Amino acid sequence: MNGAVQLPLDVADLTITSSGGALVRRTILPSGVRILSESVPGAQSATVGFWVAVGSRDEQPATYGSTHFLEHLLFKGTPTRTALDIAVSFDEVGGEHNALTAKEHTCYYAKVRDVDLPMAVTVLADMVTSSVLDPEEFESERGVILEELAAADDDPSDVVGERLFEAVFGDHPLGRPIGGSAASIKAVGREAVWAHYRANYRPQDLVVTVAGSVDHDELVSGVEAALTAAGWDLTAEAAPVSRRHPAPPVVGYTGARALVPRPIEQTNLMLGVPGLDAHDDRRSTLVALNSVLGGGMSSRLFQEIREKRGLAYSVYSFASSYSDAGLVGLYAGCSPRRAGEVADLMLAELRRVGTDGITDQELDRARGQLGGASALALEDSDTRMSRLGRSELTLGEYIDLDESLRRLALVTPADVRELAAGLAAGPLSIAAVGDVDDDTFRGLDGEPAAA
Amino acid sequence: MNGAVQLPLDVADLTITSSGGALVRRTILPSGVRILSESVPGAQSATVGFWVAVGSRDEQPATYGSTHFLEHLLFKGTPTRTALDIAVSFDEVGGEHNALTAKEHTCYYAKVRDVDLPMAVTVLADMVTSSVLDPEEFESERGVILEELAAADDDPSDVVGERLFEAVFGDHPLGRPIGGSAASIKAVGREAVWAHYRANYRPQDLVVTVAGSVDHDELVSGVEAALTAAGWDLTAEAAPVSRRHPAPPVVGYTGARALVPRPIEQTNLMLGVPGLDAHDDRRSTLVALNSVLGGGMSSRLFQEIREKRGLAYSVYSFASSYSDAGLVGLYAGCSPRRAGEVADLMLAELRRVGTDGITDQELDRARGQLGGASALALEDSDTRMSRLGRSELTLGEYIDLDESLRRLALVTPADVRELAAGLAAGPLSIAAVGDVDDDTFRGLDGEPAAA
Repeated sequence: MNGAVQLPLDVADLTITSSGGALVRRTILPSGVRILSESVPGAQSATVGFWVAVGSRDEQPATYGSTHFLEHLLFKGTPTRTALDIAVSFDEVGGEHNALTAKEHTCYYAKVRDVDLPMAVTVLADMVTSSVLDPEEFESERGVILEELAAADDDPSDVVGERLFEAVFGDHPLGRPIGGSAASIKAVGREAVWAHYRANYRPQDLVVTVAGSVDHDELVSGVEAALTAAGWDLTAEAAPVSRRHPAPPVVGYTGARALVPRPIEQTNLMLGVPGLDAHDDRRSTLVALNSVLGGGMSSRLFQEIREKRGLAYSVYSFASSYSDAGLVGLYAGCSPRRAGEVADLMLAELRRVGTDGITDQELDRARGQLGGASALALEDSDTRMSRLGRSELTLGEYIDLDESLRRLALVTPADVRELAAGLAAGPLSIAAVGDVDDDTFRGLDGEPAAA
Repeated sequence: MNGAVQLPLDVADLTITSSGGALVRRTILPSGVRILSESVPGAQSATVGFWVAVGSRDEQPATYGSTHFLEHLLFKGTPTRTALDIAVSFDEVGGEHNALTAKEHTCYYAKVRDVDLPMAVTVLADMVTSSVLDPEEFESERGVILEELAAADDDPSDVVGERLFEAVFGDHPLGRPIGGSAASIKAVGREAVWAHYRANYRPQDLVVTVAGSVDHDELVSGVEAALTAAGWDLTAEAAPVSRRHPAPPVVGYTGARALVPRPIEQTNLMLGVPGLDAHDDRRSTLVALNSVLGGGMSSRLFQEIREKRGLAYSVYSFASSYSDAGLVGLYAGCSPRRAGEVADLMLAELRRVGTDGITDQELDRARGQLGGASALALEDSDTRMSRLGRSELTLGEYIDLDESLRRLALVTPADVRELAAGLAAGPLSIAAVGDVDDDTFRGLDGEPAAA
């Protein structure tokens, strides 16, 4: 079958023929471990990800930042591998090897030549299941994370993004910085991180995805062998964790301003409004809207703010979606004395789409852009591996490129206008880093323009 | 033939069979325009680059930054295409489309599906040959570039890199920031940039490279047609520009300190010594040294400074080579109170390789890393396109992956030790951004350790 395929959590085996001749297979072990592969004709490399369904939003106040801290610690050694052994395993084959902590998941991944895939699966499985969290390594890594947080704090474009999430989501766990704070990292103890590890790295939380040159049956055997060797009981029955997040959904958005005065050259500026969650039927409409508004050099924000007025070098829009909430944002870096004007102009562009809509020509261009860009992106096994993970962990359906484009073809200019009007009517948040104060955005009151 | 193939400037047509079944062809038109293609079996996309053999080092004092300014202006329109037309051409097919200015060249490039390659060639050729440099657009783009410079100045890791080049190369043109300064950009006039454009964008300065799904004969026809349509005389004979740079080579390195005090969390720190030029026979040795010293998670700098001591999140080494000079650098971002210690540790690692050498095991690992990483990188047509450009513009020979690995296999631990000793004996420069002053690096005198 082709197109959109549901991924029910109670079906053990699924096979999907995807666009371009790729073959997607999924196996759910009785214990709840999910293994997905996307075999791409002609590929000579593979990207493998071990996903754990826990992110920063799952943390308790006493352990903010512990999901990210734990991610670091998993590189520091197991009973059979030192930190150096793990590093050498990937370095000596020239593999790319890293991890990321997000708000709803953690992912350990590697890109290697296909002959090295069994090694990558074995080492990643060992890291994920059997980290020892050595107390000395724990203290040393605390220092590394404090340096990572310090580097992020010195980058105004990082800071403005963190502050925007806080402003839009308020006290909800989605609003918190993924890495925690220097204070929370200095305070957290090994026992708390260990408890977090034991509670959340279980068979029913684990999703393994591989894309590229991969044989599904061999992959399943390799994962089973590695997890069994680690002492995991893969026969004890458990249901995979739900795709709807257990934390309460975000309510009561109010819009807030997060201004960070700093003696720097530019003002880094973001406007944000509540967006769409990952299950929303209007996702394709949002993709089109984001493309037209701020998705490329021909987009409205780029043309209006950079090309016509020369006010910014970097200006764009973006959309982030989670299992029960989302955010749409507009970014520009500009001169401090023009920051209020740039914020006005960006907001005016969003509102204008909500009142006047977009042209058929713009919508066609968005469709062409997304079709071409997706085709190019799918040449990389990294992109396919990540899409598989997101499909399984968050969406609950696998959508191939043809189906994405079919859905986009059904979007109308009226849909885009309606969505933009809804977004523009939402509570507006502002984050800014630079020479800013309460007067900088005085004229920007968050009130929707008259329709 | 396989391996390393010379690319003489007086041979009109060359065909090279490369590793992995790729076919490289080069055509030099009588006017000196060079067209290279690398056809990769099974590819469905292509990356095209229009390279011009002029970079920031070719500028005169009155026009610093004009090469980069010009690069921006080439997106702003021709007699037949507005800036929006150019943006739409690539956006509507989902292509990636950008440009970069370097110290010795400028490159305009696009990655597209293969069906869109003729369009990409036509539009890039129009941009490169026929930009109008409209005075109003010129003023607007001046603002954009000032914002780009401001953003770079707000990023400490950008700043420390620029300062290191100044410290190592001193007053030589290679030491100058590519973008110029806010003062030079505010001062430069349209006429100076126009003169720079006319003087340097000529047939003998142009190299077109394409990698991926490409037919060489169609490519040559397409380039010829586009350049002829722009009024270029492709029959008037001219020799391609030399690969040795016309500017005087760098002499008289002295080592310098460039300290930028700033109220930020981290100190961004770089040590640098004169390195190897792009024609040096010891390039393969340098590749191995850089891998062992700071090329991955198992490298000495990473293990010593991050894994063992937890002093930095980001720490690595790098090597930059130009037609007549080079630079080897060591980077770390760390706490201000540990900056002196981190600098000492990094320098000690370089010196230790120079005195004690490296193990066979480390050298094997470096070979494995470079073999695997190169194989993965060559899956991208972007990488192949860039390699072709560098082969033609700078190296004067095309080296395929098999030959690179063969050369690396000939490197011995003694070669690596000797090179490291030579580098460590060179004048040491330091750049740092953060809470630094003259005392921060007092113990680090640049004197080589006793052998």
